[in-house]
Amino acid sequence: MKPQRFALTPGEPAGIGPDLCLLLAAHRQPHPLIAITSRDLLLERATQLGVAVTLLAVDPDALPDQPADAGSLYVWDTPLGAPVQAGVLDRANAAFVLETLTRAGQGCLDGRFAGMITAPVHKGVINEAGIGFSGHTEFLAELTHTEQVVMMLATHGLRVALVTTHLPLRAVADAITEERLERVTRILHSDLKDKFGIARPRILVCGLNPHAGEGGHLGREEIEIIEPTLERLRSEGMDLRGPLPADTLFTPKYLEHCDAVLAMYHDQGLPVLKYKGFGAALNVTLGLPIIRTSVDHGTALDLAGTGKIDTGSLKVALDTAYQMAETRI
Amino acid sequence: MKPQRFALTPGEPAGIGPDLCLLLAAHRQPHPLIAITSRDLLLERATQLGVAVTLLAVDPDALPDQPADAGSLYVWDTPLGAPVQAGVLDRANAAFVLETLTRAGQGCLDGRFAGMITAPVHKGVINEAGIGFSGHTEFLAELTHTEQVVMMLATHGLRVALVTTHLPLRAVADAITEERLERVTRILHSDLKDKFGIARPRILVCGLNPHAGEGGHLGREEIEIIEPTLERLRSEGMDLRGPLPADTLFTPKYLEHCDAVLAMYHDQGLPVLKYKGFGAALNVTLGLPIIRTSVDHGTALDLAGTGKIDTGSLKVALDTAYQMAETRI
Repeated sequence: MKPQRFALTPGEPAGIGPDLCLLLAAHRQPHPLIAITSRDLLLERATQLGVAVTLLAVDPDALPDQPADAGSLYVWDTPLGAPVQAGVLDRANAAFVLETLTRAGQGCLDGRFAGMITAPVHKGVINEAGIGFSGHTEFLAELTHTEQVVMMLATHGLRVALVTTHLPLRAVADAITEERLERVTRILHSDLKDKFGIARPRILVCGLNPHAGEGGHLGREEIEIIEPTLERLRSEGMDLRGPLPADTLFTPKYLEHCDAVLAMYHDQGLPVLKYKGFGAALNVTLGLPIIRTSVDHGTALDLAGTGKIDTGSLKVALDTAYQMAETRI
Repeated sequence: MKPQRFALTPGEPAGIGPDLCLLLAAHRQPHPLIAITSRDLLLERATQLGVAVTLLAVDPDALPDQPADAGSLYVWDTPLGAPVQAGVLDRANAAFVLETLTRAGQGCLDGRFAGMITAPVHKGVINEAGIGFSGHTEFLAELTHTEQVVMMLATHGLRVALVTTHLPLRAVADAITEERLERVTRILHSDLKDKFGIARPRILVCGLNPHAGEGGHLGREEIEIIEPTLERLRSEGMDLRGPLPADTLFTPKYLEHCDAVLAMYHDQGLPVLKYKGFGAALNVTLGLPIIRTSVDHGTALDLAGTGKIDTGSLKVALDTAYQMAETRI
């Protein structure tokens, strides 16, 4: 397998993103991995953590083709807006964070990178800086002119995609429409094929209501919206099972025979995923023309600079991005 | 510990309830356990399964004080409405099912039994028989004149109670009121103390919305309803943590330091519980003046008479009822 280049964005500079990149550099990656961030920031954080990492500045127009050695990290130096104190948010660095994402995302579109892996950003401080920003996913959707993206979390043995994501619970039922369900299911199905190499993806679909509506006694969305949509997509040959009750679907009997679960909303699907995948779960944005994976945790401001962090989620995010890129070739 | 008597109701006679009772009888129980059902039904099912169980008819006014030997089962004979064919529902037996529940529940109130353990009933066939019935829980609440009960599922290392249970998802947000949350939390707290022997129960409370509302950006119920209610109850000395995001709460960091999780609705709390406790989870009704536990699965009509069933859930339901009765003394 020919090495391909990947971009790594550490996200919020006051959070644990820089720490994760530095700890990761202890081991050689199978592909050249370029951290897009401030070299000064990494140097300072390395001193704070007491880790020895050689930072190799790269020229964006002549990026390396071979992985860095263990103990070294490639850095596409990107200037900070203000010096960083670990754990302390500063809106003066909001534009810096977005610049790192733009370099990575545009680099994927241009062919500089085969994919990008993101550490967490802090939405609040970016908004406080007067910049409209509702998350990585939306930012990358806009950068790549993508109308609909799908959030999927994954860990060893389980993938969960969501029909709706960050909506108040009372808005969920009305957001489950035939159009949305069909769009999301199509993206999930085609990305499982094209980006994960699953020839005939088997997808389990949750109901919206408890017991999947129990034949209409506990809600009619299964009968009126979900079943007709699945039936239509099945007639095209998709292997879709459901709608199933969420509290029976997440058991070995069902999960052993599926490639992904499609949950109707955030707290129906993610608690099981994060319970099962604690410390080793990742987030994948489906539907983009580029490969993007992410850690599944937040900025953990209180842990920045302490070294008391776990690189488990970042490692699976990297491995998944590598596998997706190899599959796509 | 002095043996106390317990009632076991096999529930729907065409389902796996009778099978579970017969398989269970292979081992001696620590307390006298009385199956309240038809002796003929058990005899016939035992023949079908090819298991040898001695059925010991008991006199309800002179119930045994010692456990039956391994291979024997005490039976409080209760006449069927019609002969039973495994797997085939018959509305002629609806009244029989309710009679077994009445005998068990009334027996708990009268002091005949220290608690009751229930196998699954089939709501549909009881309703088809023209009898209003919405489940064990509601039936026992009425029998014992209890206004509010709380559904809690449990498995080794995790208990999850629900603020709302069998409601369509679109009705959930409006059902989360200060009154209901307070009533449910009080019942959970006092039953953990009185029936589970936890001196100072530590309860983790989920938010209603994803990310527990993210400071009001994803819904305001946390700010307007949940937080003020928890604050009021904390001022009485209750150890309540939350509202927390459901997808971070169900991780070791939090769960290691809690006695129960209070979820706002069915599919927020039960998928994790059933994933973790597959085959070894039980249902407890809190708030009743009697002890009642139940298996966490359904009637499994297709498996009745086949022997291909697992008694894991019934065993933990029994063990939990025994422990609760010992704690209560």
